[in-house]
Amino acid sequence: MVAPVDALIEIQTGKLKVEDWARACINRINIRDLDVGAWVYFDQGSVIEQAKALDKVPLHKRQGLHGLPMGVKDIIHVAGMPTRFNSEIYKHIGHCSEADSDFVKCLREAGALIIGKTTTTEFGASPIGPSTRNPHDLRRTPGGSSTGSGAAVGDLQVPVAIGTQTGGSTIRPASFNGIWGVVFTMHDISTRGQKAFAPTFDRPSVLACDVDILKLIAKVLKIKDDKKKHLKTIRGTRFAFCKTPLWNHAGQGTKAAMEQAAELLRAHGVKVEELQLHPQFNQVADWYDTVLYKEGHKSFLPYYDDCKEKLDPTIVNLVEKGTRISNREYQEALQGLAALRLQMDEIASRYAAIIAPSVPDEAPIGLKDTGSYVFAKFWTALHGPCLNVPGFRGENGMPIGLTLYAARGRDEHLLDVGEKVGKIFENSGGWRKPPMRSKL
Amino acid sequence: MVAPVDALIEIQTGKLKVEDWARACINRINIRDLDVGAWVYFDQGSVIEQAKALDKVPLHKRQGLHGLPMGVKDIIHVAGMPTRFNSEIYKHIGHCSEADSDFVKCLREAGALIIGKTTTTEFGASPIGPSTRNPHDLRRTPGGSSTGSGAAVGDLQVPVAIGTQTGGSTIRPASFNGIWGVVFTMHDISTRGQKAFAPTFDRPSVLACDVDILKLIAKVLKIKDDKKKHLKTIRGTRFAFCKTPLWNHAGQGTKAAMEQAAELLRAHGVKVEELQLHPQFNQVADWYDTVLYKEGHKSFLPYYDDCKEKLDPTIVNLVEKGTRISNREYQEALQGLAALRLQMDEIASRYAAIIAPSVPDEAPIGLKDTGSYVFAKFWTALHGPCLNVPGFRGENGMPIGLTLYAARGRDEHLLDVGEKVGKIFENSGGWRKPPMRSKL
Repeated sequence: MVAPVDALIEIQTGKLKVEDWARACINRINIRDLDVGAWVYFDQGSVIEQAKALDKVPLHKRQGLHGLPMGVKDIIHVAGMPTRFNSEIYKHIGHCSEADSDFVKCLREAGALIIGKTTTTEFGASPIGPSTRNPHDLRRTPGGSSTGSGAAVGDLQVPVAIGTQTGGSTIRPASFNGIWGVVFTMHDISTRGQKAFAPTFDRPSVLACDVDILKLIAKVLKIKDDKKKHLKTIRGTRFAFCKTPLWNHAGQGTKAAMEQAAELLRAHGVKVEELQLHPQFNQVADWYDTVLYKEGHKSFLPYYDDCKEKLDPTIVNLVEKGTRISNREYQEALQGLAALRLQMDEIASRYAAIIAPSVPDEAPIGLKDTGSYVFAKFWTALHGPCLNVPGFRGENGMPIGLTLYAARGRDEHLLDVGEKVGKIFENSGGWRKPPMRSKL
Repeated sequence: MVAPVDALIEIQTGKLKVEDWARACINRINIRDLDVGAWVYFDQGSVIEQAKALDKVPLHKRQGLHGLPMGVKDIIHVAGMPTRFNSEIYKHIGHCSEADSDFVKCLREAGALIIGKTTTTEFGASPIGPSTRNPHDLRRTPGGSSTGSGAAVGDLQVPVAIGTQTGGSTIRPASFNGIWGVVFTMHDISTRGQKAFAPTFDRPSVLACDVDILKLIAKVLKIKDDKKKHLKTIRGTRFAFCKTPLWNHAGQGTKAAMEQAAELLRAHGVKVEELQLHPQFNQVADWYDTVLYKEGHKSFLPYYDDCKEKLDPTIVNLVEKGTRISNREYQEALQGLAALRLQMDEIASRYAAIIAPSVPDEAPIGLKDTGSYVFAKFWTALHGPCLNVPGFRGENGMPIGLTLYAARGRDEHLLDVGEKVGKIFENSGGWRKPPMRSKL
């Protein structure tokens, strides 16, 4: 695959045709889809048609993402494509969505070329994977719930794909597929047009082969820090390594990646500190679950009442568990998390970034279990931006990423830091992403 | 109009045909629509068809709302009907929505008959009214943004209509049209399938001619208090009258209604106290605005970037104002409101309910300005259930309602209290709702 930012520049100057880039993606998908199975909707003819239309746009009218090929998770509406949520209920749906989700609309206005819909676990809420395989080892899960978005980008079928995250639905597949994944600060992107699961946590997200493309998308979305200082170097800055109260879940691969990351950063003149959180933070995981079950119960009630038998048993369980959570427990959990968010903002602001595990270890063998999201949900609950930076590998040679976290509203800063950290991890962490050419 | 709960019972026992009830609504709409103009989409033939289908459902399979005619605000998706948001952008949309919003889906599963789509201000976010008129005085606004839902119910064209509330979009039209309006505790109902405005405040809502129907809908939605005690009488209970920090906005009509309400309750053996809020609550309105502008800016960005010229200038202003709010201001506002919610829960729990103004006064003359939402937004920001109880009238004979507020999660309790308070207001407050027959 061509490096996407280079390709975008060539499109801006008319050196590269959108159609050629689209055809390169289509070829790769056609070669690999039987093995990987990242797509649930993909109509070659219409992709080419759209690409040709984009090629007709005069150069001076091209926006920042002009021609960028993109997959979209199938719990998000895209005009002209069906939305099936990997649900029995929507399996035989024939019609297409009437309109783009707000997020897709923004990206399309900036010139993005929507290639198709990527696989998801049921409604993005079940832990049970679709039949998509990890491109780096077909026996393994690519993670979930943004399963196809992770696998398609990890396999260089598209440079970028849209996902969502309520717990670990982006950070986990990003880590498992050796790619970048970001969820921006809560409410930075409108969620209209994606399936609601737990509105207190639901966020759209981006998975990409490269951090430059994340920076470009943040710009298009007008995601801005209050005060942005360009970070020339991370030399001399402080990083917090945070094991979180969930460290007992960390496997050998993640433990080694955390150690290696700390060493690498130290070697680059960074001051690395271990961050011990106040015991109050031990409650984050329980509070998260309380809110998730209570709100998830409301989001799936219409389906539960109508056709429970067509729902994944884990979603049935979610609804039933949610029914038993009292209003008081729910309000206390909301309140508890709100207070900790402020504390975490203050802590995070003392550092260039907080570094924490993304996942317990490499992607496990088997497609059914999309893996644990225990680490990611901790940071998701706190509403700041989360970035999976790839770079390490586990004992089976599979990728392992780490999470960089910043205070709410410091998204641009986090991407800057991530870019610098990512180069170090990539050069010396052990995980090599498949090579990108500078030309198609 | 027939009293809806009586009609529902007759449908359950087969004494009343859904079709007959639907035809009664259709007749009323046809007589009145030229004057009131509450509907943007209304297809008689398809309503009769659906009614006939409902009549074919065997008695033992009928759910709690079987045959209940209902309007839906046109920023909420209804399968088989177009969604136009009263926006220039969607004006000529030909196609129908692919699916019901989660809320509509719940109601339809319980047997509701969706009659059509009701008017709204642009995207439910502009203060500028559509051409809908107040049924009680055609020169006056019915309020907004759930404009048509308020007017259609106020005019007894339908017994109930669905709206939304981000600030005062339900409480205000409920007060202006002399009807009941409720927004339940935040996150009690999924918002999927309605236009997002400010997700921290957006809630679906119900406007109804009668409190019994609100109780029935709460039951269908499984909205439950943690501990529900049946309230036999309000005699001996305590009520807080709260002028809020915004009392200077109250006009003669609302001031008189508050005084009259306090006297009436005292006469019924209720202990009435004036609630003086801690000065911290003075910040609610500003914090609300900060969150509204910041989140509203994100919700309308896709339209702003694409076709600013087609947006109502107030929405353009919203986006531009939102751009200037810093992340820090936004996070502080979120945090400040979260802390006050807990305090307000504690305060509200000491009383049967808090009573406060719904609006400054009667519906103003003119259709363009849908009136002030300054009081409603205060309570909306605090996330507990808000109920407009009609019963009073202003100096021009137009209806004025008051807001009953309870702690988050005490929705059933609030409806119980509202029912009892409503009877007292209705009997002696001065506003008489148009008579309902017990038979069609």
